[in-house]
Amino acid sequence: MSRTLQEVADAITATVIGDSAVRISGIASIGRAANGDIVFVEDARYFADAVASQASAILAGNFAKDLPADKPVLIVPHPKLAFARTARLLIADAKSTSRQGQIHPSAVVAASAQLGPGANVGEHVVVGENAALGANSRVGAGCVIGAGVRIGEECRFHPRVTVYSGTTIGDRVIVHAGAVLGSDGFGYVRDGATSSYEKFPQIGQLIVEDDVEIGANTTIDRGALEVTRIGRGSKLDNLVHIGHNCQIGRNVVIAAQTGLSGSIVIEDNVVLGGQVGIGEHARVGEGVMLGGQGGVLPHKVLRGKGEVFWGTPAQPLRDYLKQLGRLARLGKK
Amino acid sequence: MSRTLQEVADAITATVIGDSAVRISGIASIGRAANGDIVFVEDARYFADAVASQASAILAGNFAKDLPADKPVLIVPHPKLAFARTARLLIADAKSTSRQGQIHPSAVVAASAQLGPGANVGEHVVVGENAALGANSRVGAGCVIGAGVRIGEECRFHPRVTVYSGTTIGDRVIVHAGAVLGSDGFGYVRDGATSSYEKFPQIGQLIVEDDVEIGANTTIDRGALEVTRIGRGSKLDNLVHIGHNCQIGRNVVIAAQTGLSGSIVIEDNVVLGGQVGIGEHARVGEGVMLGGQGGVLPHKVLRGKGEVFWGTPAQPLRDYLKQLGRLARLGKK
Amino acid sequence: MSRTLQEVADAITATVIGDSAVRISGIASIGRAANGDIVFVEDARYFADAVASQASAILAGNFAKDLPADKPVLIVPHPKLAFARTARLLIADAKSTSRQGQIHPSAVVAASAQLGPGANVGEHVVVGENAALGANSRVGAGCVIGAGVRIGEECRFHPRVTVYSGTTIGDRVIVHAGAVLGSDGFGYVRDGATSSYEKFPQIGQLIVEDDVEIGANTTIDRGALEVTRIGRGSKLDNLVHIGHNCQIGRNVVIAAQTGLSGSIVIEDNVVLGGQVGIGEHARVGEGVMLGGQGGVLPHKVLRGKGEVFWGTPAQPLRDYLKQLGRLARLGKK
Repeated sequence: MSRTLQEVADAITATVIGDSAVRISGIASIGRAANGDIVFVEDARYFADAVASQASAILAGNFAKDLPADKPVLIVPHPKLAFARTARLLIADAKSTSRQGQIHPSAVVAASAQLGPGANVGEHVVVGENAALGANSRVGAGCVIGAGVRIGEECRFHPRVTVYSGTTIGDRVIVHAGAVLGSDGFGYVRDGATSSYEKFPQIGQLIVEDDVEIGANTTIDRGALEVTRIGRGSKLDNLVHIGHNCQIGRNVVIAAQTGLSGSIVIEDNVVLGGQVGIGEHARVGEGVMLGGQGGVLPHKVLRGKGEVFWGTPAQPLRDYLKQLGRLARLGKK
Repeated sequence: MSRTLQEVADAITATVIGDSAVRISGIASIGRAANGDIVFVEDARYFADAVASQASAILAGNFAKDLPADKPVLIVPHPKLAFARTARLLIADAKSTSRQGQIHPSAVVAASAQLGPGANVGEHVVVGENAALGANSRVGAGCVIGAGVRIGEECRFHPRVTVYSGTTIGDRVIVHAGAVLGSDGFGYVRDGATSSYEKFPQIGQLIVEDDVEIGANTTIDRGALEVTRIGRGSKLDNLVHIGHNCQIGRNVVIAAQTGLSGSIVIEDNVVLGGQVGIGEHARVGEGVMLGGQGGVLPHKVLRGKGEVFWGTPAQPLRDYLKQLGRLARLGKK
Repeated sequence: MSRTLQEVADAITATVIGDSAVRISGIASIGRAANGDIVFVEDARYFADAVASQASAILAGNFAKDLPADKPVLIVPHPKLAFARTARLLIADAKSTSRQGQIHPSAVVAASAQLGPGANVGEHVVVGENAALGANSRVGAGCVIGAGVRIGEECRFHPRVTVYSGTTIGDRVIVHAGAVLGSDGFGYVRDGATSSYEKFPQIGQLIVEDDVEIGANTTIDRGALEVTRIGRGSKLDNLVHIGHNCQIGRNVVIAAQTGLSGSIVIEDNVVLGGQVGIGEHARVGEGVMLGGQGGVLPHKVLRGKGEVFWGTPAQPLRDYLKQLGRLARLGKK
């Protein structure tokens, strides 16, 4: 299936220069583009490469308005964003033509489970009692959806995801293979008499809001007695760990292998680099960026919209860089 | 199912103040308690909140003996521990009423496998030849139990756990979704002639003792030629890695994303924070606590019961704090 | 099944001292060896222990030529390498007698999928449309092989591996349980107007070359628009993360929990310790060794064959050690 360039331009609000009837069926990098593909250019220096490519059309910024091109160009304020939206448009087309509303015969779906129209349940999936899967949501092969789990509309679960019972998931949530959602938190009470650990009950809930994406083999624990929450639009990379009772705000980005222990608050628009570690009850304020491998001690609060923190214990980047410089000079004395 | 408050008090050894005939069916936090729930209070300041809650009873310390309350109170020396035990009691009740002793028809169980009375095998589970599952143990959907694996009694395997062949697991072990037990260790011999790596055989065993809990997506390798062992009562969080030939003692706590390379000894009662990394052949002595993101070099030994270590390379906390202070002062010269 | 010592010696190019007709059926450590096993000794000090063991034969270096032994000895230049090769020989024997060329009836294999001779598909496996599995390759229980995936010959996939569609895998590749190959990379474009993130298309490919081994629960992302590549003979431990567009060279060793963000180049023969973190677009030059927990900043280049780097930001080991020394002395002023 394909779209005319004019249809693409209308969908993403772009100005067409050249033949708007050209048909677009895919996206690609300049180096790998083929006939039917659209590519994007953010920098005038690479525009000639895009023109020379096999692509059928180019997404570019205002700079391209007067540059020579023997193929049509869509002028947009933010070419990379427009490219991502074009991709979404074309992928949605592809999805609408794929089989939908099917339950694979090898799946085990409880009679009390509710499946919305167009919901798709893959091979060897298990859907527990009273679970609900919203319209057009797709659950990949080998997923296990626990009892009472509620999944919204237009979700995409890749294979082998486990969702523990009672978890609630919003609309348009993407979960990658092997992720575990709503597992028990890590809480014990030590019995002084025997030195052994008694498991503290982990009977709270996990709520994942709309438009969240969760990476492969990432684990998110349910609340102990309360709720763990991943806010709307937040994106978690692979192998991330989120402990019990954490509150992750909206549009938070968490890179791979970062770990949050329990009861942490991450406010909206925070960016955490990879392999960051945050201690229990810490708080990262709105809009803070924390560099890779950074560490935040328990109960610590980081604040500053747009402020970049680095190191362990995390400090403002400029302080961290000064310290690195002094350490290096120490070596030369 | 529910218990009278007197039955709870008898089970956990508590003194009842008030109506001991009240029925308790659940546990909850003060904020979320409903009729039938019991809550706990460790600090007199929160006792009034507990009284004002919807809970049917309160677990509290001696301090509550003479405080006003219009609902029954159980007096115990350690309210949080008592709360955890009450939870276990009520959950055991719930378990005993759930279906038991069933093999889901979609499971593939070898004819030579032995299942104890009350053992439960979930959807799409695979149980290999000569594997044994003890009485009342439950294996969740999609688990793969290799040939010759021995699992004790009263174990709880959440969905999609893989146990490699030959692994031995004790009683009352809890394993969370996606964990991998007994995988090959990471060992190669370099062939100088070709620069390629020859796999060193990984044919040893993994032994997990009684009362261990293992977190989601955690990986524990079998021994190369010998045994990897996780000692009785130890608790491992999510995404932990334990390399081949490691010896983990009893009642050891290992927080999320911590990694142990090969042949490491962790003695009894050690606590490792999250994202700790330990080099091969290192030893962490009895009762040591090592803070999050700490690093221990290969062959290094840390000693000191109750001593707290921090940083990379790990040093006693007071030395680490002094160093941080000096680093900060350096910046002000 | 077993081999005569002479057959073993011929296969691994060794000189036999003693009875070459002795039959060998297994390998073991000195402490656990039984009749029929062969053991190895790299150091003359342990030779007597090997002689005293229950093993039927010993692999040893030249030093053992004139040492007394009442059992046969194979003299080789590199006993550990010879031991690994002997293990491979005996395991290959065991494999050839195991059931082969079978598709378990519970597997769901697309009609358009191609299976080579001797290929083995385990319980509850899913093989997507147009996927291809080479001769004698074995796919363990619960694996999900996406549409169009190509897997070479003699591969071994342990249970519950997920391979996203379009991934290409070479010959003799070993993948451990729970690994995820070819998942979406972590790429978004921020929409300034709404502060929300638009998913950047992740439609590239993952190519894994011959003789690679991939650890349990490791995740490797496909390219965004291009290719992620794991070079021939490279070995990845458990819980490793490789981001989109990374180029890993040949015979690279990556220890557990190390994470690479996007578009990183790791040249041939690099060794990365555990929990290393590398920022996007960085490059690690041929033959570099980077110690555990080391960190490399985005766009940084490390160079030096055989050079060892350590710390965050990574620096040559001798500089790192000097700095540690100065830090310690600071504390004593």
